[in-house]
Amino acid sequence: MERTEISKLGEFGLIEHLTKEIRLNNSSSIYGVGDDAAVLDYSGKQVLVTTDMLTEGVHFDLTYMPLKHLGYKSASVNISDIYAMNGRPRQLTVSLAISKRFSVEDLEDFYEGVLLACDKHGVDIVGGDTTSSLTGLAVSITCIGEAKKEDIVFRNGARPNDLICVSGNLGAAYMGLQLLEREKAVFYSTHHDSKEPFSPDFAGREYILERQLKPEARGDIIKELADAGIRPTAMIDISDGLSSELIHICRQSGTGCRLYQERIPIDYQTAVMAEEFNMNVYTCALNGGEDYELLFTVPLELHERISALKDIHLIGHITNPESGRMLVTDSGQEIELKAQGWQSHLD
Amino acid sequence: MERTEISKLGEFGLIEHLTKEIRLNNSSSIYGVGDDAAVLDYSGKQVLVTTDMLTEGVHFDLTYMPLKHLGYKSASVNISDIYAMNGRPRQLTVSLAISKRFSVEDLEDFYEGVLLACDKHGVDIVGGDTTSSLTGLAVSITCIGEAKKEDIVFRNGARPNDLICVSGNLGAAYMGLQLLEREKAVFYSTHHDSKEPFSPDFAGREYILERQLKPEARGDIIKELADAGIRPTAMIDISDGLSSELIHICRQSGTGCRLYQERIPIDYQTAVMAEEFNMNVYTCALNGGEDYELLFTVPLELHERISALKDIHLIGHITNPESGRMLVTDSGQEIELKAQGWQSHLD
Repeated sequence: MERTEISKLGEFGLIEHLTKEIRLNNSSSIYGVGDDAAVLDYSGKQVLVTTDMLTEGVHFDLTYMPLKHLGYKSASVNISDIYAMNGRPRQLTVSLAISKRFSVEDLEDFYEGVLLACDKHGVDIVGGDTTSSLTGLAVSITCIGEAKKEDIVFRNGARPNDLICVSGNLGAAYMGLQLLEREKAVFYSTHHDSKEPFSPDFAGREYILERQLKPEARGDIIKELADAGIRPTAMIDISDGLSSELIHICRQSGTGCRLYQERIPIDYQTAVMAEEFNMNVYTCALNGGEDYELLFTVPLELHERISALKDIHLIGHITNPESGRMLVTDSGQEIELKAQGWQSHLD
Repeated sequence: MERTEISKLGEFGLIEHLTKEIRLNNSSSIYGVGDDAAVLDYSGKQVLVTTDMLTEGVHFDLTYMPLKHLGYKSASVNISDIYAMNGRPRQLTVSLAISKRFSVEDLEDFYEGVLLACDKHGVDIVGGDTTSSLTGLAVSITCIGEAKKEDIVFRNGARPNDLICVSGNLGAAYMGLQLLEREKAVFYSTHHDSKEPFSPDFAGREYILERQLKPEARGDIIKELADAGIRPTAMIDISDGLSSELIHICRQSGTGCRLYQERIPIDYQTAVMAEEFNMNVYTCALNGGEDYELLFTVPLELHERISALKDIHLIGHITNPESGRMLVTDSGQEIELKAQGWQSHLD
């Protein structure tokens, strides 16, 4: 019996491999696997469906992730996928597999977080499943949204000369994670058996912690774009790092890109933390995941209108495919962009 | 800090507890938590959404469950929920959390099974998530279907004097599970270290094994009812056992019921196996889960028409709530129906 290790394919290779035989047969199935959400047409508005699974020890560590935050984050990352289609999130289902280690209060905390995110974005919880697990906690959320057919933005619409835009700032969630991991290590090495209370060193780092523990889906950006009458040509939310997501857009659009390192928005706290950890802050912004900012492209002629908008940054432009997918460093050097997936967990 | 054990509430108590604060706000959210699927209205047809999570060691045992069968079963149980609303399944998302123990071929097997079930019921896979797990396998599937508003059947529409009907036969999947568990125990006690090939004793038991390993969603029954112009007043699929599901219908409809034990359809293999295990076959049919047959009620005046249909059995009738929810035994004795959930896993 042949055996191919999953690590050999990597995340995207595995997904492509598993889904390549899938064909859409129903007239109501407009778009299936391959974007942030599936598009279904039940006459009139189109229905957007997206789903994400989070498992303990892989996507979250309950040592420092309160369950309320986990609920908020689990909902937010799914809601973010609907926004990334330029849709409006409407419903959500929540499935949980739990071991006896968890109490009713724990689950209340989790649901409280889910409801908080849902309330913020006008989303209804319409179903789910709660079942038992012999080991850790697993969370699976499906979010459903709607959009007019002509408003939906896929990953494949970028064209040469389009401007590459990103909301907010990048690398913050990743630096927040590094900080939490460091304080956890300090706790286990020095305070685990101690009777002294442990005070993690979080002063002045609240912003990056919040970016990791309580990420926000950028519905405000979707609204801002709609109000300005701007429809992106391609869009994706940043869950796996800027580099990986930009490659998705280029690959699916059949284009290259030029990304200017100095234009990548970085928050002050992120930069300070990276310095303290002796890490290159741009590497963190390019490859660190979980920022849930929106990455999108708009036609060049919208330059002035997009520049006038709040919290949106121009970081490069789309090119012909022959020009490659390049990062232009501060010193003017061109380096090929590389993606990273979750394969490290399966190595 | 107060701590309530989950086992204290049980499955249904827990779900009720966790969802009681949920309010529906969008006009497109017609029906949320509380039935087999959520109903969404995006003009014209209504959209049905259902989701189920299965975890290793709780819902399936890979010792005797081939991954292809697991894929087929995972899809079938979700598709069954859409039929239980009198809807037509249309799309499905598949999320998997896997450990490095699994190979690409394993996942191909799983997907092959999912696709087989999807093909059979005309369902498109439109999304999902594949991620890693530090421990066992977890599967989360969301199925989306459609129905005309006036065709949808909820659990709460049963009225006194309605006939209680069930498709196929019951207890078979449960007896199949008992057989598999017995052969597994034999293998571990006598053959585990042996070099002799192990031949489980499955001759003549193929039907009950297939009911456990490859359950079928009863789309044929939904079609049969539609062709006959019959719309049930209430309907549910049998995943947790006849007793539990009938109580759901009665509770949500505000009625009682009278279920006649001798009318419960039992297959010959199920009866033989129960005899061999020294178990009461009716107890297996009432409390054994995973049959995925349809349980529904129809008005009394349809007696002749429903009796003429293939593979549908009349097993009792709905009563006033004051009459209670009663099982009438072969000897004419009346016993109150009791439900069982999955709480045993969390005890």
